[in-house]
Amino acid sequence: MSEHLVAVLGRGVVPADEPVIHPDDLGFARGDGCFDSARLVCDESGARVVNLDEHLDRLAVSAARMEIDGPPREAWQALVDEALAQWHVPGEGTMKFVLTRGREWYPDHGSLALLTITQKKAATVRTSAGGGQVVRGLRAVTLSTGRPSDAFAEAPWLLGGVKTLSYVVNIAAAREARRRGADDAIFVTTDGYALDGPTSGLIVVSDGVMRTAPTGATGILASVTVDEIMAAARADGMQARGELVPVGELFTADGVWLVSSSRGPSPIVELDGTPLAVDPELTARVARMAGF
Amino acid sequence: MSEHLVAVLGRGVVPADEPVIHPDDLGFARGDGCFDSARLVCDESGARVVNLDEHLDRLAVSAARMEIDGPPREAWQALVDEALAQWHVPGEGTMKFVLTRGREWYPDHGSLALLTITQKKAATVRTSAGGGQVVRGLRAVTLSTGRPSDAFAEAPWLLGGVKTLSYVVNIAAAREARRRGADDAIFVTTDGYALDGPTSGLIVVSDGVMRTAPTGATGILASVTVDEIMAAARADGMQARGELVPVGELFTADGVWLVSSSRGPSPIVELDGTPLAVDPELTARVARMAGF
Repeated sequence: MSEHLVAVLGRGVVPADEPVIHPDDLGFARGDGCFDSARLVCDESGARVVNLDEHLDRLAVSAARMEIDGPPREAWQALVDEALAQWHVPGEGTMKFVLTRGREWYPDHGSLALLTITQKKAATVRTSAGGGQVVRGLRAVTLSTGRPSDAFAEAPWLLGGVKTLSYVVNIAAAREARRRGADDAIFVTTDGYALDGPTSGLIVVSDGVMRTAPTGATGILASVTVDEIMAAARADGMQARGELVPVGELFTADGVWLVSSSRGPSPIVELDGTPLAVDPELTARVARMAGF
Repeated sequence: MSEHLVAVLGRGVVPADEPVIHPDDLGFARGDGCFDSARLVCDESGARVVNLDEHLDRLAVSAARMEIDGPPREAWQALVDEALAQWHVPGEGTMKFVLTRGREWYPDHGSLALLTITQKKAATVRTSAGGGQVVRGLRAVTLSTGRPSDAFAEAPWLLGGVKTLSYVVNIAAAREARRRGADDAIFVTTDGYALDGPTSGLIVVSDGVMRTAPTGATGILASVTVDEIMAAARADGMQARGELVPVGELFTADGVWLVSSSRGPSPIVELDGTPLAVDPELTARVARMAGF
């Protein structure tokens, strides 16, 4: 069994098995809230959150787009410090921040802010022999979003780019991927572009150029780790840009990765049943760019 | 202040102000659950739920499509009975059923099922003088879903037709409507059809024919009250059918209504700033068809 920690703003660390959410909390009742997840590392020097500022920044952007009046940065930081001081499980974990609009029955009570820490679960991995080395990667399937790539332009009510608690389609897509014998999904648009995964960003390298789908009209979430990889690629002399990638180009790319803050970049070894190119050297380079 | 009641399966009625949900409940953490709402009427003969079986049927369909193993009907019925026995607030209310996939950290614990009762809030209404009578109705705006009308065909991961807890786009659409000075929204597709409202179904009467958008490929939710009105219309000798209605036809219709179980059919008196036809006799007839 894995370990957990729960801390609620205004209360601090609480027993992890205590119910802390009211049935009329709008985060529960309507998925009306936002969240963010960051990688946590705990070793002999203590526990720390990787890219904490970037994740709290992204949470603040989500809250602003939803017009939720969340706590100030210092309050989050104090809650994080209190939680880290009480977390002693060696190894990797995930810190998740949740902010809801608060209670339906008592709008005056304001927003609810809490964080959880969980031990990292071992990821499902596939191995692919390439160039004499073994690469651990994922089998993926493409799943349509039912929308064109510009569906979120001028439609702020669709909450594109906001990491909301209304996340069930992402979960259902991951379930559909497993049903098809795969490990994960890549969302594609009705006009034929690859966007991202249900819980991860997407990067594609073709002819030495790194691409990731742009935020904005696509509605995809900004990814802290994708941004980190793109910046490192540029520093490393590689061209790297936000640009829509036609689905067909995934099959001819030098490499395709799904990227999340907790598991880093995972190469896609098979897409819709077709093996993809996996270059072990390039994969190791991308992993280093993400700090893994 | 309005009154509330909360009942949790396995515990019965609990204090309405007690937190009963864990932070890792997937309904909270991922919007991974479903719900349904029904009209409640309380008078000297006691409290009762209108169309209870139909709402529990719809909840069961939502759960099945999400592959959530919920409680049997008898368990819901017993919880409803216990809650109704303790509800003594005269007038109208709403009973809401919520079912989640359960806890992320303890998958073995199974699903969470609860219900709430809230007193009915007074709806925002506009009045429109028509034919010497005053009709209470709504001003609405059209908002795009970003999807064509067949986006949900063969895409079960998009959870079309499922009343999930991932409901935030509906809430954001209602907020956008208010921002534009309206009371409610009507979702429209990228190929130009009117679907439904964020928390209501849509019916349109033109040339004596009643139409509502079909479920299925459109992804819209089945509406218990729309079904009731359509059946009553047929029994009343009116043609009534599920059929996509082009947005432009709303402006030339004899009447357009947003329909919910708690507030019944509300005529749209203005759409995107243009007054719509409102026939007081037809509106009264539609209200009677819905049992209001």
